Amino acid sequence: MSGMPDATPAGALDLPIAVRWTDLDAYGHVNNAAMIRLLEEARIAAFWQAPEDQVALGAVEPPAALPISGVGAEVSTVIASQRIEYARSLGHRRDGVVVRLWLSRLGGASLSVDYLVLTRDDPEGTAPYARARTVVVMVDAATGAPVRLDAGTKQRLAAHTGEPLTFRD
Amino acid sequence: MSGMPDATPAGALDLPIAVRWTDLDAYGHVNNAAMIRLLEEARIAAFWQAPEDQVALGAVEPPAALPISGVGAEVSTVIASQRIEYARSLGHRRDGVVVRLWLSRLGGASLSVDYLVLTRDDPEGTAPYARARTVVVMVDAATGAPVRLDAGTKQRLAAHTGEPLTFRD
Amino acid sequence: MSGMPDATPAGALDLPIAVRWTDLDAYGHVNNAAMIRLLEEARIAAFWQAPEDQVALGAVEPPAALPISGVGAEVSTVIASQRIEYARSLGHRRDGVVVRLWLSRLGGASLSVDYLVLTRDDPEGTAPYARARTVVVMVDAATGAPVRLDAGTKQRLAAHTGEPLTFRD
Amino acid sequence: MSGMPDATPAGALDLPIAVRWTDLDAYGHVNNAAMIRLLEEARIAAFWQAPEDQVALGAVEPPAALPISGVGAEVSTVIASQRIEYARSLGHRRDGVVVRLWLSRLGGASLSVDYLVLTRDDPEGTAPYARARTVVVMVDAATGAPVRLDAGTKQRLAAHTGEPLTFRD
Repeated sequence: MSGMPDATPAGALDLPIAVRWTDLDAYGHVNNAAMIRLLEEARIAAFWQAPEDQVALGAVEPPAALPISGVGAEVSTVIASQRIEYARSLGHRRDGVVVRLWLSRLGGASLSVDYLVLTRDDPEGTAPYARARTVVVMVDAATGAPVRLDAGTKQRLAAHTGEPLTFRD
Repeated sequence: MSGMPDATPAGALDLPIAVRWTDLDAYGHVNNAAMIRLLEEARIAAFWQAPEDQVALGAVEPPAALPISGVGAEVSTVIASQRIEYARSLGHRRDGVVVRLWLSRLGGASLSVDYLVLTRDDPEGTAPYARARTVVVMVDAATGAPVRLDAGTKQRLAAHTGEPLTFRD
Repeated sequence: MSGMPDATPAGALDLPIAVRWTDLDAYGHVNNAAMIRLLEEARIAAFWQAPEDQVALGAVEPPAALPISGVGAEVSTVIASQRIEYARSLGHRRDGVVVRLWLSRLGGASLSVDYLVLTRDDPEGTAPYARARTVVVMVDAATGAPVRLDAGTKQRLAAHTGEPLTFRD
Repeated sequence: MSGMPDATPAGALDLPIAVRWTDLDAYGHVNNAAMIRLLEEARIAAFWQAPEDQVALGAVEPPAALPISGVGAEVSTVIASQRIEYARSLGHRRDGVVVRLWLSRLGGASLSVDYLVLTRDDPEGTAPYARARTVVVMVDAATGAPVRLDAGTKQRLAAHTGEPLTFRD
């Protein structure tokens, strides 16, 4: 990409995500839309789970939950934008990928999640396969109106903030 | 989004794409990764098909094929980057969506595809649900090395070029 | 399959379903799990939609709705079993497939949907690509307990019943 | 299901498979087509991989490879039939599922794979969520004609054979 490697913020979370054979295109590379699904799996696992789930998440530290927990919750999320840049193609990996993510922006009713797609043989994150960002907006599940993050949630989420990635274009 | 609507280039292609129930999330909105699949379907239908397929594409004018035609072709494509911005959520549509796309950049070995995601009741494209761009690189299917577009292909593709979209961030 | 073609019941519904490039495996054939999705799309379009959607379904006659309409409904459905037998591989079709379906059994709280996967150039259904059956159980969305179909729904659904398919094994 | 639990053949393989959030329907249950994908992932991991992959498969013993290894191989496979019966709904599991599979029939050019879908807290397999079977035919990748399994492959696969499951209907 460029000379400087991406610095990993201290509060970043590493989420191991399995790659499926059906994520691959005819050339054996993880398809673009499938990669967005891998990011989504990581994001949900990190921030969207019910509290009781988080403690048991295993290898990662218990992440800071957003105040939502699936269907029935009063607060929902919508995606405002998504971007991803690939450094090179990712083939099938028996050991899956590691999605490293952190919050690069924590706004009133929205937040930005930045990601590096890594593999287990690169714990330093020196050669990410892809770099990505999702902008998420918190909304009232019934009306769709933006909902401000409360102070407690913001404080918990603040532990996972870090510098935003720079994209090529 | 902003005051000025997106101008549709003269060479843009409109591709009707079916929305599936399984594209929807628990809130009845087309999921982010599913939307990337809709763009992919439209891009493939417009530029990736074998010549004999293109003539019969029905309602749209025969698109300009890239010199590739699936597995076995000598030239393949890889995605360099993908971005999408949503104006609002898209629910299930019995009549699917219309993906309007054009080439916003035609480089030596790469090209950029810009998209507006529209519905049939908005033929003018005044209120796109999403605006997106995919950067595609032509590569040698065997070696992965970039392959320059030949003059004939470039000339055919030039009929579908247009101004690039401006993204929010 | 065998000597006798499958007879199409009078009340069968024909649902046109689009095939996606991403439904194909590396050999260009619709993948097994993707085919189950095509059946699901047809089944939902025929029986699961909200009443206001049904009238506008276009080419097909308005189907008989089950008394459910997505999240929030009091009655939900679960799949008890699924089977499919392939006569031959199905490649990509620009014009998609036609899923012909009918109710081969209408029980107290469950029903069986039988399917033939056809193409538009075979309106008689003489050479189906696949033959399938899904057994669906109506359940209380809150408790999961089976819910009996009421008399009115049964009467409407009865218009779409027909002889069950015979499977090879 | 019935009084007698399913006996697990000695040569059965247990494959751990991750469940994704996007495998779930609006009710939080693994969707029918998604479950077929889980079976497919397990089947590919057990029998379809290139030899060098198999040794490193981790917790499971090195499985017996079919003489195929993806695109480019001379022998391919097609699905002749698929069936699955559900005992109850499967929700999201942080620890995924365990797909137990074995060969319930080893024919000339075809074989049957039987599966139990289990969870890690049920190593005995007393309460499978689903029971399934896939019939696979080996074909010449170029012509599609059936290809007989050679004696060596049959001998290796024989280590993973076992009694067929009995299905409800």
